[in-house]
Amino acid sequence: MKTLVLLSGGLDSTVLVGHLLDTGSPGSVSAVSFDYGQRHRIELTAAATVAGHYGIDHTVVDLSAVGALLSGSALTDDSVDVPLGHYADPTMKTTVVPNRNAIMLMVAVGIASARGIDRVATAVHGGDHPVYPDCRPEFIFAADMVARKATVGFGDVRVVAPFMHGDKTDIARAGALIGAPMELSWSCYQGGVVHCGACGTCVERAEAFRDAGVSDPTRYADTEHTHEVTTTEVDA
Amino acid sequence: MKTLVLLSGGLDSTVLVGHLLDTGSPGSVSAVSFDYGQRHRIELTAAATVAGHYGIDHTVVDLSAVGALLSGSALTDDSVDVPLGHYADPTMKTTVVPNRNAIMLMVAVGIASARGIDRVATAVHGGDHPVYPDCRPEFIFAADMVARKATVGFGDVRVVAPFMHGDKTDIARAGALIGAPMELSWSCYQGGVVHCGACGTCVERAEAFRDAGVSDPTRYADTEHTHEVTTTEVDA
Repeated sequence: MKTLVLLSGGLDSTVLVGHLLDTGSPGSVSAVSFDYGQRHRIELTAAATVAGHYGIDHTVVDLSAVGALLSGSALTDDSVDVPLGHYADPTMKTTVVPNRNAIMLMVAVGIASARGIDRVATAVHGGDHPVYPDCRPEFIFAADMVARKATVGFGDVRVVAPFMHGDKTDIARAGALIGAPMELSWSCYQGGVVHCGACGTCVERAEAFRDAGVSDPTRYADTEHTHEVTTTEVDA
Repeated sequence: MKTLVLLSGGLDSTVLVGHLLDTGSPGSVSAVSFDYGQRHRIELTAAATVAGHYGIDHTVVDLSAVGALLSGSALTDDSVDVPLGHYADPTMKTTVVPNRNAIMLMVAVGIASARGIDRVATAVHGGDHPVYPDCRPEFIFAADMVARKATVGFGDVRVVAPFMHGDKTDIARAGALIGAPMELSWSCYQGGVVHCGACGTCVERAEAFRDAGVSDPTRYADTEHTHEVTTTEVDA
């Protein structure tokens, strides 16, 4: 069973590679990352570093021409501000790149079919669902159906999402258990040298480590927001 | 109701644009074409010519980096010969680009979501089914489900295939009825100045016009193969 992992360089996909290597044979896992014109290239650097750590094959696909057409997202469009605050807030809608996961999954399925790889794995999880429609279980179910229908006789490729029914806290806990190099992963939507600590994904990342009872290896520029969230949650 | 058509520059999508303009309001139709590293760029030129004829907005998306990864197809890989003969033959399997339709549809759905377009239309039809799994009704059904699930709250984009239950003969007949500029379309898998007349899509194109009782506006370099097919079918 060979698996091609969508590796963004974030915490979730970094742990997913480790999880699949932990449960599969050496050489059974490879990774693909997408350059869709992200404002900050540090994600792709983190993906390459993580792949290097694991010693797995890593392909970067240039989708920047596609990213330019899906404008209006804070992740690809310089004129849109990255929202600060909690990841589950409605303001995070501006970080949606329309249909991005479907595009990346379908390109990965094509690569898997061409390379004789059995399945494509994505690290989307329960915490993504409130904001991103293309992270929900019904979306993954439909994407798997498309992959199967499109590759009948050409590899019968599947789409799987092993973390679908967990959340980021479960992922941080699993990462610690299997010794995933979580310190090499990058979550921040801002473009600093260290994690900003204030954007939605930084807040979510810090929460996950805290709730999992796992030491957070991340250096944050601003720890005020993450503390605010902690206080609010304790009050509630 | 706005529709984004996947326009390859071939006969089917050329007629589909005309069909949608014929049944919709002016300005309701736009087109997208994909550069996936086709061996012969004449397809993209034909697409631009057809869009210009109709006076519709036309976007070309550079997916050549993706095409290079989906190698092994006669359509993208110079080392693989284009098969000659009938389109429905098993030899046509070498013209399959893995998951190509899913990739193009999902990119188009992302563009539609970003632009406020209601649906994406593809010209796949019944004659495509024997060879290409990603042209079958169950694939289109699944692709529509992915589009809907991925764009909930972001345009609720649909995927439609108006010619799904017809074949190329029906398309040629419809094209003649509505005056579609079929003479501007390009079907040939070879890279000549005129249609070769011998490859699978040329044979299929000539058959469609003949069976529809529509004058074929195509100039073929080699009419021997199309005649052979005619004779065989009359004998059978």
